[in-house]
Amino acid sequence: MSGACVTIPPRSGVAFPLRAGQRLTVIDPEGTQCADMLAFDAADVRHVISNGRTFDYEETLKLTTGNRLWSNRSAVMLEIVEDTVGVHDFLLTPCSADTFRHFYPDKPVHRGCFGNLAEALAPFGVAEDSIPTALNIFMNVPFDSATGALRVEPPPSRPGDHVTFAAAIDLVIGLTACSAYASNGGTFKPIAYRID
Amino acid sequence: MSGACVTIPPRSGVAFPLRAGQRLTVIDPEGTQCADMLAFDAADVRHVISNGRTFDYEETLKLTTGNRLWSNRSAVMLEIVEDTVGVHDFLLTPCSADTFRHFYPDKPVHRGCFGNLAEALAPFGVAEDSIPTALNIFMNVPFDSATGALRVEPPPSRPGDHVTFAAAIDLVIGLTACSAYASNGGTFKPIAYRID
Repeated sequence: MSGACVTIPPRSGVAFPLRAGQRLTVIDPEGTQCADMLAFDAADVRHVISNGRTFDYEETLKLTTGNRLWSNRSAVMLEIVEDTVGVHDFLLTPCSADTFRHFYPDKPVHRGCFGNLAEALAPFGVAEDSIPTALNIFMNVPFDSATGALRVEPPPSRPGDHVTFAAAIDLVIGLTACSAYASNGGTFKPIAYRID
Repeated sequence: MSGACVTIPPRSGVAFPLRAGQRLTVIDPEGTQCADMLAFDAADVRHVISNGRTFDYEETLKLTTGNRLWSNRSAVMLEIVEDTVGVHDFLLTPCSADTFRHFYPDKPVHRGCFGNLAEALAPFGVAEDSIPTALNIFMNVPFDSATGALRVEPPPSRPGDHVTFAAAIDLVIGLTACSAYASNGGTFKPIAYRID
């Protein structure tokens, strides 16, 4: 039986428990939007998703079906079990008031995914300084292997595209509908998710 | 006047203060060795170097002279002011007992740079779980921009090669002579450093 689909309004974020064995599906309902995702051990939030450990053990910077997301304690937290897009970023940090000031000096400052994650995760005992690099679902960050240069392009996701994660342990998940201009081609759309 | 050159013995690590304006030079005295470096705000160790924020603001995965190393609070911690190698990795986490078990199942387990950093940084109030991805000086991690695949190759550093960082704020630095087989071509050599 499928769980209910929940919508995350534009430029906002949520946090919720995900139990071992459950599946989380993150959906781009309208297309060209991305979602920053964090995962913490529900039993101890100092135990947290790690881009570096994931790159170590998966031996790739590009994650899709079959790849696992590892923690700072070298444990598997999630596995990608279905992915209709295959484009995600695990290099860049969540947009924040500081990144808005840096990249968009002429635009209104927004607290960004960082501020949204911080507020949503605070009730679970997560401090702002403990927010690591998120898995940026559907975010399109091409990089050049010769120069290392990277850039942010609009997500290639179309309406209804989705990615499904299976939880290996009991987790607290943080998830956003992205707030930054470059990350979603200047459109601020919702993100949806479902737990099965 | 130059500071004294200090040698970090093979497969070990140290931590020390570095004041704003001071320069830290990390030297590969024998060649083909790498050094994991961490930086924490001396006034508050929750404020720490961040690979993701650095990739955000420097817009590259490859860091060399002129690039700055940013913190989780979007502050510049260090700037690279001289670099005779130009090959460093900021993607992979420090080697640890877990990475030894994973990558070298037939070899003796070593606590690795992670264990060495944890012990050296403990007196400064840094907990193991708070150790982020280090800047892996001279570490050679080619990646493929199409597939994302990465691999670890021996460092290209020759005897006497070095990189110099200028501190933007008062810091606590963690620094190792790397312990893993792949990272230094199977040789375990010392690393040296100097503060000016």
